[in-house]
Amino acid sequence: MEERTEIESLGEFGLIDHLTRNIEIHNASTVLGVGDDAAVIDHFGKQTVISTDVLVENIHFDLMYTPLKHLGYKSVVVNLSDICAMNAVPTHITVSIAFSNRFSLEALDEFYEGVYAACERYKVDLIGGDTSSSQKGFFISVTAVGEVAPDKFVKRSTAQKGDLICVSGDLGGAYLGLTILEREKQIFLENPKVQPDLENQTYIIGRQLKPEARLDIIQYLAEKEVVPTAMMDVSDGLSSEILHICKQSQLGAVLYEEKLPIHSDAKMMGMQFGLDPTACALSGGEDYELLFTIKQEDYDKLTLSEEISVIGYMQEMEKGVNIITRGGNQHPITAQGWNAFK
Amino acid sequence: MEERTEIESLGEFGLIDHLTRNIEIHNASTVLGVGDDAAVIDHFGKQTVISTDVLVENIHFDLMYTPLKHLGYKSVVVNLSDICAMNAVPTHITVSIAFSNRFSLEALDEFYEGVYAACERYKVDLIGGDTSSSQKGFFISVTAVGEVAPDKFVKRSTAQKGDLICVSGDLGGAYLGLTILEREKQIFLENPKVQPDLENQTYIIGRQLKPEARLDIIQYLAEKEVVPTAMMDVSDGLSSEILHICKQSQLGAVLYEEKLPIHSDAKMMGMQFGLDPTACALSGGEDYELLFTIKQEDYDKLTLSEEISVIGYMQEMEKGVNIITRGGNQHPITAQGWNAFK
Repeated sequence: MEERTEIESLGEFGLIDHLTRNIEIHNASTVLGVGDDAAVIDHFGKQTVISTDVLVENIHFDLMYTPLKHLGYKSVVVNLSDICAMNAVPTHITVSIAFSNRFSLEALDEFYEGVYAACERYKVDLIGGDTSSSQKGFFISVTAVGEVAPDKFVKRSTAQKGDLICVSGDLGGAYLGLTILEREKQIFLENPKVQPDLENQTYIIGRQLKPEARLDIIQYLAEKEVVPTAMMDVSDGLSSEILHICKQSQLGAVLYEEKLPIHSDAKMMGMQFGLDPTACALSGGEDYELLFTIKQEDYDKLTLSEEISVIGYMQEMEKGVNIITRGGNQHPITAQGWNAFK
Repeated sequence: MEERTEIESLGEFGLIDHLTRNIEIHNASTVLGVGDDAAVIDHFGKQTVISTDVLVENIHFDLMYTPLKHLGYKSVVVNLSDICAMNAVPTHITVSIAFSNRFSLEALDEFYEGVYAACERYKVDLIGGDTSSSQKGFFISVTAVGEVAPDKFVKRSTAQKGDLICVSGDLGGAYLGLTILEREKQIFLENPKVQPDLENQTYIIGRQLKPEARLDIIQYLAEKEVVPTAMMDVSDGLSSEILHICKQSQLGAVLYEEKLPIHSDAKMMGMQFGLDPTACALSGGEDYELLFTIKQEDYDKLTLSEEISVIGYMQEMEKGVNIITRGGNQHPITAQGWNAFK
């Protein structure tokens, strides 16, 4: 029988002690971590970057098919991705949660196992947070802090006309992974005896359940001495994100359908579900890849990377934001990314 | 008729634009605020202090008697209080919320009016956040950032034997304010035609609905060149907090009942409710005063302040954490502060 310890038996401070007992500190700048009113970070000669994201049960995640450890990992990673999208290196996080009494201590431990796994993987320090009960649902709020050399951060608003549009990794997989998980959930709800058929789709299910922040791309760009002219991460979907960069940079853009990086597993599953892989890549969201623009003269420095695709270029605002299809037709791009209020 | 704009009609980005349209920046260190993946803060030669708190509907607040503007103000202030409790000056906040569709845009505007009022009052900059829907309930997560001269932050664990225990302002009022509001809620639920009778208790109701962070005390201590040996804010209740300082400093303490600062309105309401004002001061919570210890030789520097009371002293751990009553009896102090899991 699985153990179940009620949170109430520990109280808030017992719970915090329990959840933070194995914290490891990775950054010399962590002067003071968990256990006081606030944490203290030393940042001499660097700029501090800070970002925060909320994840809400049944809005952002479904516990029917999301293991708590993966949820903890993903909650951290989506915030680190925002720090990377500023061309900064993540260093610290705070994690706050509110949960109903259906969660046991063992369940929270699983969640924090994922949090600590992400801290270990990205060498960031958990330095604080808050825990509370809720009447219904699991709420997660993570704040991530990172550092960047003075004025080396990259905004969304500074792309220039003629800049090349690049994206890391591949797109659309996370959405197709979600589609499989949702299908299996429906089958399970109709007949709980049926075993889930995940069709060995470990790649695209992994894209949904265990995304990564592209810190490796930030490090690669630094190594190659390329500073993107604009950058953001792909959380809502490529079409939504390129529209942000265009709007904030007051420019238009052209993307080429044939250049969009799509994993072969994603193509196959897309066809199986009757979903256009290009549409999944444009509107899917949750891939947590980096979308960035570079000066044309930097192109040669990045050609050796298999992890970076050039997918288009920036143009005058008046020319619009368009995609050129494989057939050579031009269509305007509209935001159909994920929306937390629909 | 009151206007009601559905959030869905704006979408997340429209909502963020709307809620942040009047942001004012108070700190030169705010290099980049709302509107990108992350905010950027410059902190040359200072240490960064960071703290986060979650507020959950029907756990931390009841919207039946909490005006949304006050809730926004309080959500910020309780976080700034944590920064002050580190002997630091708050500079930046992020505010994340999740809310169900019973909230209109006008309701969120009221909440943010309170957030901005607190930013204005304390000269802190709102630099980011996240918004999401929830299936049920209103969730608020605020992260506050502050700065302090290198190694001038004050922890809970560094009190010394013989140090004097001080507290700012007065205690117990916030709890009594809550007691009045809860009573009026019950009366209203039984008979919605009865008008609330707040008995002109503006002081203690204000203590509950619109607390302040004691930045003025931090500034006064700096002016008088007093660095507390340990400090924390009174959020859960004096008894809970002094036990934290004792545990973390590995010491005991003596408090004097007659020295506990209690406002005359709180004494009066306590008697009216049949509640011992001392018990309210010890266990009430939410007063957001500062509890701190000072070296005995610093005592003379603070005697002129009417806002600081000396309420006891630190002693050997073996002697315990006790209160000496007006009658001269000694009782051990036990934590009966507020608990988010009860």
